[in-house]
Amino acid sequence: MVSEPTDQSGPGQWRPSREAVIDLLGLLALGELLAFERMAVDARLAPDLGRRAHLSEAAVGEIRNFRLLADRLTELGVEPADAMDPFREAFRAFDAKTAPRDWFEALVKVYVGDAVADDFFRAVAARLDDADRRLIDQVLAEGTAAEFAAGEIRAAVEDDPTASGRLSLWARRLVGEGINRAQAVASTHESLADLIGGDDSFESVLRVLTRAHQERMRSVGLNN
Amino acid sequence: MVSEPTDQSGPGQWRPSREAVIDLLGLLALGELLAFERMAVDARLAPDLGRRAHLSEAAVGEIRNFRLLADRLTELGVEPADAMDPFREAFRAFDAKTAPRDWFEALVKVYVGDAVADDFFRAVAARLDDADRRLIDQVLAEGTAAEFAAGEIRAAVEDDPTASGRLSLWARRLVGEGINRAQAVASTHESLADLIGGDDSFESVLRVLTRAHQERMRSVGLNN
Repeated sequence: MVSEPTDQSGPGQWRPSREAVIDLLGLLALGELLAFERMAVDARLAPDLGRRAHLSEAAVGEIRNFRLLADRLTELGVEPADAMDPFREAFRAFDAKTAPRDWFEALVKVYVGDAVADDFFRAVAARLDDADRRLIDQVLAEGTAAEFAAGEIRAAVEDDPTASGRLSLWARRLVGEGINRAQAVASTHESLADLIGGDDSFESVLRVLTRAHQERMRSVGLNN
Repeated sequence: MVSEPTDQSGPGQWRPSREAVIDLLGLLALGELLAFERMAVDARLAPDLGRRAHLSEAAVGEIRNFRLLADRLTELGVEPADAMDPFREAFRAFDAKTAPRDWFEALVKVYVGDAVADDFFRAVAARLDDADRRLIDQVLAEGTAAEFAAGEIRAAVEDDPTASGRLSLWARRLVGEGINRAQAVASTHESLADLIGGDDSFESVLRVLTRAHQERMRSVGLNN
């Protein structure tokens, strides 16, 4: 779990800058848009049409979340594309190094990515004002993609215990690449790092996310 | 326009076989599922994130239609994946020969594909019973993808008249490949061809679709 939110209503409280909130919403919006595309693309790796359709349908939750975040950016007077643009390279670099080679690698990417993203949403929500916090709650209410992926992975590992080692290694690589990218983004977007880290350091937030991730891995039969 | 439906309530009327209806719904469901994936994949060709998101969001209509058709198949006691399977090769062959090389080729494929599919839905709806006809009406009510694509193509051709020749050629290739695939499917699924052709020959239905397509091409500044 992440640290409790500090009291948001008291005087003299820390408030994120408008710039930091726009950066954050742009980052999250692009993440959702790309998660949508990635799932639709990777659905082609499915072993049958039923599973292929299932992953494609699960992707719809991501594009709905994208729309919520993009509309909020528009409300704040920012063109969503402009807010997303600074983060394209980070996502491109991440995806270039983590292209799944088969259906189960794709599912682990969905599971890890979706769940880490949700933890991240929760971690930052506490630092936002009411309107943005409600928006994040809506975003978190969506999404059955991780559940579907978890069920498939668990069944695959039960079926073939040798799959666990291979997929565990893959999950570690995803997290390693993800941390690299997150550090690169934080180092070039200082106000965003402040928002994410708040009273804690950015590194300690990363540690919290990593720990939650490790528990989730175990729950589907993978190890660290 | 296609020929008027024959009276569905009279005695001795022609009725499609259950097998033909299942084939038809399987064909349409797979078409919608693959249109969804194709749009999400081709969205990556967009010149900016705004357009990229727009095409991805338009794709959601296709997966909704897929769900309507798949649920109807389940209602009829058929596993949707089983009903779709016989048509995978036709779509695979079509897509292998018509991979768009840029954003405008992708949009022409969306525009042509979506509109021809809608004409096809209308042509067959008349021959179905009430429940299936209502379903087709719901499917036809969806979809802003073709409108978005048409607007973009029209603007591009106005901007650069030389684009018209290249994209017109591309559209002809799409239709040519589509007809090839449709003929192959009809020849291996006789009851489906009967359903599609009804009193008319399958060829005459194709001619009607082609004529409607040519008018649509002109409306976005392309020629035949």
